Amino acid sequence: MAQDELKQWREETVSTESIFDGKIISLQVDTVALPDGKTATREIVKHPGAAAVMALLDGKLLVVEQFRKPLEKFQIEIPAGKLDPGEDPAVAAARELEEETGYRAEELKLVSAFYTSPGFADEKLYLYFADKVVPGTLNPDEDEFLQIEAITLEQAEAYIAEGRISDAKTILAVYAWKLYLANGSI
Amino acid sequence: MAQDELKQWREETVSTESIFDGKIISLQVDTVALPDGKTATREIVKHPGAAAVMALLDGKLLVVEQFRKPLEKFQIEIPAGKLDPGEDPAVAAARELEEETGYRAEELKLVSAFYTSPGFADEKLYLYFADKVVPGTLNPDEDEFLQIEAITLEQAEAYIAEGRISDAKTILAVYAWKLYLANGSI
Repeated sequence: MAQDELKQWREETVSTESIFDGKIISLQVDTVALPDGKTATREIVKHPGAAAVMALLDGKLLVVEQFRKPLEKFQIEIPAGKLDPGEDPAVAAARELEEETGYRAEELKLVSAFYTSPGFADEKLYLYFADKVVPGTLNPDEDEFLQIEAITLEQAEAYIAEGRISDAKTILAVYAWKLYLANGSI
Repeated sequence: MAQDELKQWREETVSTESIFDGKIISLQVDTVALPDGKTATREIVKHPGAAAVMALLDGKLLVVEQFRKPLEKFQIEIPAGKLDPGEDPAVAAARELEEETGYRAEELKLVSAFYTSPGFADEKLYLYFADKVVPGTLNPDEDEFLQIEAITLEQAEAYIAEGRISDAKTILAVYAWKLYLANGSI
């Protein structure tokens, strides 16, 4: 549909109520005017954004296992972290990879940038690919306790089947890896 | 790492503060005990979960365009919606597909189930695939204003390049579609 026809479907903000302002996220409830003249509320989580890296070490994917409190379980994921205010996502990706795995990327290519949950959150995640890494300096955050592993595609598929890999960015990375192996590109 | 060795890395809840209980999400802040004996806080969004469908109509992907208030822009996405309490995700997927696009799936296959943002939210999204659809009954939610389109893979790639498709589930669906076309399976 043409952009000017779409405009009538915008939801204009009538009022905003700030609910919470935390260390990582904030929450607000907006009252919006709908195209039919009615109003509705929208619950909106604000997040600074994040960067993640699918990095290959001798053809194996670098992953970290950590406890995820919102899920009350351990998860195996590619290295990732939130952006500092105004930070270039490529800089954040390089930093998180090295701090969490102890390996440094020689080059980072952007694979995809996506909103994780556009119905209630503005979090945008930048996914990078590094086909080569070299030893660097391990330096996890003070409250981060991570186990590092380099896994084959078969192991990744097995972890997905077991539910030990089950987050959007890591599953997207595994799909991208399969496309990379099938086509030589993502 | 073996499951019993991992146990020491769990984050035990010291206390939970309920911040907000909304129509779609709720928010709590947990204080947790870390493996080193220190404490930290975790900001946790609770969400009922969601279901989405990558449905092909004569080989084209059914998508809907809608205004996403958290992003303050229009987005083109595969049909999706949140689960009712205790609802089977396959039932929700079938309902959302028909209500949002007016097409009904003859069969739904689970492609993937993933947590959209495990750092701060427990939302789990179930992604289904339907390679065939038949006409059904359009019936969007009262506060939903959607434009429906059936797109080729080339159009999907163009929308991704333009930023009009940029959410995790739809990008994952496009990757799955490419794998399906390349390998005959996902």
